[in-house]
Amino acid sequence: MTDKTLDKLFHETLKDVYYAERKILKALPKMAKGAVTPELKAAFEKHRDETEMHVERLQQVFEILGKRAQGKTCEAIEGILAEGEEILDEFKDEPALDAGLVSSAQAVEHYEIARYGTLARWADELGMKDAVALLVQTLEEEKATDAALTKLAEGGVNRKAQQAAA
Amino acid sequence: MTDKTLDKLFHETLKDVYYAERKILKALPKMAKGAVTPELKAAFEKHRDETEMHVERLQQVFEILGKRAQGKTCEAIEGILAEGEEILDEFKDEPALDAGLVSSAQAVEHYEIARYGTLARWADELGMKDAVALLVQTLEEEKATDAALTKLAEGGVNRKAQQAAA
Repeated sequence: MTDKTLDKLFHETLKDVYYAERKILKALPKMAKGAVTPELKAAFEKHRDETEMHVERLQQVFEILGKRAQGKTCEAIEGILAEGEEILDEFKDEPALDAGLVSSAQAVEHYEIARYGTLARWADELGMKDAVALLVQTLEEEKATDAALTKLAEGGVNRKAQQAAA
Repeated sequence: MTDKTLDKLFHETLKDVYYAERKILKALPKMAKGAVTPELKAAFEKHRDETEMHVERLQQVFEILGKRAQGKTCEAIEGILAEGEEILDEFKDEPALDAGLVSSAQAVEHYEIARYGTLARWADELGMKDAVALLVQTLEEEKATDAALTKLAEGGVNRKAQQAAA
């Protein structure tokens, strides 16, 4: 047994999420551009701005940890975003595009909700109060984005996806 | 514009989740075997049994849809499970292994929560009441598993991950 304790795991996961957030930052403008419903387009643009702040908060957590902000390839987000790209390609100009984009974005949000929930609990265990505050702030924004996407889906995006064929 | 409406998107996503659930079914025994804390081991074993039922429910949804149960490579779950395997390798026999396993499992659960939430809303829009009931049943079990994992993390798994080094 070496010294691979919670602080090591926290640092590794922080690098994973840092990589993921910067990938998401690049993906969101493509999703905004693809979206047909103006409210969905606006939601992606708003979340892009929030994501910039999430990246900054992660940099602050690295600082608290006394480590250099550094990403590490996150295969999970690569896979989740690849599925989103597939929807963008396969449903381009099709009635169900927006419903598919909401679905892809919610898969992204839930990945982040899982990771930030974990990181916040670990930071708490490690006694890093300031880091907990930063991580919980982002966690709450990811949850709010997920809820807003559900509202858009129920508020007409899903209906349009099916009606357009009639 | 062709006929790529919500029913087409529903069918595609159903295939994605069907593939994912069968991958998870294979991954859970490895996670149970790796887990050190008996309660975590038991949680993975219980969720393995539930996952068998989730696969069966998906087969019923395919039947309702009048389609053959068929999977389609889900890059998202491949990525999420690959990260879990990495934790299993890198933290084998290390204090933080169980904390890492909980984290990996919660990333899996959140992927499923996102997908089943989406599928249930789409089935509702498509007027498939029996499918909604099946999908919501699984959704609730995934949420319960996620909550149980959080309880295990807070109930000692995270503490042990850090204390073992002292």
